Amino acid sequence: MSADMTETQGSWLTPDEMQQARDRVPVVYVDAVPVRVDDRGLVTEIGLLLAATDDGMLRRMFVSGRGRKGERIRDALMRHLEKDLGPLALPRIPATPQPFTVVEYFPDPGVTGFVDERQHAVSLAYVVPVAGECRPSQQALEIAWLTPLEAFSPDVLVELSGGRDRLLRMAMAHCGVLP
Amino acid sequence: MSADMTETQGSWLTPDEMQQARDRVPVVYVDAVPVRVDDRGLVTEIGLLLAATDDGMLRRMFVSGRGRKGERIRDALMRHLEKDLGPLALPRIPATPQPFTVVEYFPDPGVTGFVDERQHAVSLAYVVPVAGECRPSQQALEIAWLTPLEAFSPDVLVELSGGRDRLLRMAMAHCGVLP
Amino acid sequence: MSADMTETQGSWLTPDEMQQARDRVPVVYVDAVPVRVDDRGLVTEIGLLLAATDDGMLRRMFVSGRGRKGERIRDALMRHLEKDLGPLALPRIPATPQPFTVVEYFPDPGVTGFVDERQHAVSLAYVVPVAGECRPSQQALEIAWLTPLEAFSPDVLVELSGGRDRLLRMAMAHCGVLP
Amino acid sequence: MSADMTETQGSWLTPDEMQQARDRVPVVYVDAVPVRVDDRGLVTEIGLLLAATDDGMLRRMFVSGRGRKGERIRDALMRHLEKDLGPLALPRIPATPQPFTVVEYFPDPGVTGFVDERQHAVSLAYVVPVAGECRPSQQALEIAWLTPLEAFSPDVLVELSGGRDRLLRMAMAHCGVLP
Repeated sequence: MSADMTETQGSWLTPDEMQQARDRVPVVYVDAVPVRVDDRGLVTEIGLLLAATDDGMLRRMFVSGRGRKGERIRDALMRHLEKDLGPLALPRIPATPQPFTVVEYFPDPGVTGFVDERQHAVSLAYVVPVAGECRPSQQALEIAWLTPLEAFSPDVLVELSGGRDRLLRMAMAHCGVLP
Repeated sequence: MSADMTETQGSWLTPDEMQQARDRVPVVYVDAVPVRVDDRGLVTEIGLLLAATDDGMLRRMFVSGRGRKGERIRDALMRHLEKDLGPLALPRIPATPQPFTVVEYFPDPGVTGFVDERQHAVSLAYVVPVAGECRPSQQALEIAWLTPLEAFSPDVLVELSGGRDRLLRMAMAHCGVLP
Repeated sequence: MSADMTETQGSWLTPDEMQQARDRVPVVYVDAVPVRVDDRGLVTEIGLLLAATDDGMLRRMFVSGRGRKGERIRDALMRHLEKDLGPLALPRIPATPQPFTVVEYFPDPGVTGFVDERQHAVSLAYVVPVAGECRPSQQALEIAWLTPLEAFSPDVLVELSGGRDRLLRMAMAHCGVLP
Repeated sequence: MSADMTETQGSWLTPDEMQQARDRVPVVYVDAVPVRVDDRGLVTEIGLLLAATDDGMLRRMFVSGRGRKGERIRDALMRHLEKDLGPLALPRIPATPQPFTVVEYFPDPGVTGFVDERQHAVSLAYVVPVAGECRPSQQALEIAWLTPLEAFSPDVLVELSGGRDRLLRMAMAHCGVLP
C-alpha cells in the first residue's frame, strides 16, 4: 500500500494507473477474520491486528487487501494472510468460495456504513482459522488474540473503525459465537 | 455492452477507459439465475436467456453484468435483471448479500473453467426467484423456462458455454433440486 | 403446543408419546425471522410476535416450531408461518434449504445460550420475507414491525428471551443490516 | 448401528426405544464429506468410505450418523468422524454451524430422492477437510481418496446409492470444484 508500485500479474501499476482504475470501477477486495478454533472447530479467539494507517494513526483491523488481475480469490487471501501474519501462520482457507458476507466499502459513510476513503471496494469476507505462529509483518505492529467476549468489549470495538466492528460481529454471528 | 459509452455513477466511460480498467484490475460482476418457485419456495423452473453474442452467435445464458462504481450489489442485480427480463419481471433479490458462490471468469479456460474472453471478472452469483412477466429486452431474444430435469438435458447443457452449464448445476445444487 | 394431541403425518401423538421422544432424541425445529424487504431485497423491517407463553407471561418471539415426521422442512416452515402470521401473509420461503444458521436449544442455558426448557431442539433458522397481510393467530397476540434500528433498542432486546435477541442479531448480520 | 444399545447422553436406548422415537419424530443427522485440500483450501481429493451395510452389501458412503440428545452438532460430527476415520484423521470441522445443505432422507425414494429405509432423517451436511491419517474402523472397510474427476466417473457414482451421488455433487458444487 505504501509502495510506489502495485504488482498486477507480474507487471506493475504506478500509483496513477491504480488511481485511474479506482476512478472508474469498484475494486475487488478480500477480508479475512483470523480465528483460533478448538478441536471441534469452535472459535475460541479472534486475531486483531494493530496497524499504523497512512496518517500515522494506530488502528485495529483484520487481514484485508486487493485482489489482483489474474489472481484467484484463494491466492489473494493467501497472499494477504502471509503478508500480515507471516509465513508460519498456517491459515486454513475455507474449502468453499462462498463468503460469509460481501462488504461494500464506500468513501461516503452514509451508503453502507463500511468506509474506505480511497475507493469503492467490494470485499469477499471469510473467517480463516489460523493454526500456526503469527508474526505480524509490514504495517502490522502486533496481533492480539481475544476471546469473543473480550473482542466485544466497548474498548476494543471503538478501535475497530470504518465499520470493522460490524464486520467482527457479522463474522462471529456466522460462527455462532456472538456473545 | 454494445454501447459506445459505459455509465459509471452518472458519468460515462469510453470503451478505451473501460478497457484500461480491465487491463489493470479484476472487474466486479453479478450473475443471477432466474427461477420460478412454488408457494414453498421450491424451484420449479429455471429461466434461460437466448441471446446473440458480439460475434453473432446464439447462446443460452443467465442474467449477468458488471457492477458500476458507486453502485451497490443489489442495485447492480436489479439493473441487470430489469435490462434482461423487462420491467415487469418482479425479481425477488435475496435478503442476504451472501452469494451462493463466487465465479471467477478468466480469458484462459484453463484457470477455473469459467471463461470471459474480454476480462478477468469476479462474479457474485445469486439465485433470483422471478414472480412477474418476463419480456426479454436488448440483446436477449427470448427467455425459456425449463424444469430442472429439462435444463439438465444434454441438448440444453451444450448451449451453456463458458462454464455456464456448471453455474447452472451449482445453482441447482444450492437449491436442492439437482436432478 | 397447548393442544392435547400432536399431529404427526396424519396420525396424532399424545403428550406422553411426544414427551418420550423428547427424552430420547433431539427434536427437529425451524425458526423463521419474518422481514419486510424493499424492491431490491434489502430488509426494512423485522416482524416480532408478541405471544403468551405457557406460564402466562408475554414474550417477543419469532415464528418457530417443530418439524413433523414425514414433513419436509419447507412444509414445516410454511405450516408454522401460516399458523403464526395467518393465511394471507404470503411468506417467501428461500429457494435454498441452506439455513443461515443452526440454533441448538437446550434446557441448560450454559450450553449454547439458546434455551428451551422442554427439550433439546436443533433448529434450522431462515430469514423469510413476508409480502402480504399478517394476522397473528393462535397464541400470538400481535405482530410488531420494527426497523432494524428499532429492533436493536435495549427495550426490545430485553423482551427477546432464551437467546432470541442473539438470533435476531445473527439474522440481521446475515442480511447485512446489523446496526 | 449394529450395537444392541444406543447411547444417549450417558444413558442407553434399547433398539425398541430408538425405534419408537423414529416412529414419532424426524431424526437429527449429520453428513460429513471428507476432503483433502491444498494450502489454499482448494479441494484436491474426496474421501469415500467402502462399508458393509446391514444386508451384507458393500457400498460407498460418506461419514454420517445420528445426533444424540444433549450432544452439540460439532460433537456429533467429531464423534462420527473419529468413529469412521480413526483417531488420527485430524478433521477440521468448519468454524460456522451453517451447513452447505440440509439433506432430507425418507424411506420413500419419491419424496426427495434421498433414501433411508429405516427413518425420516434431517441431516446437516458439511464438507470437512481432513489433515491426518485415516484408518477406517468399525463397519468401514477402507477409505478411497479420489480426485473430483475420478469421483465423478460413472463407475464411482453408481456405487453411491440412496442419493449419495447427488450429495457428492452438491458438496463439490459448494466447493467450486464440480467437474
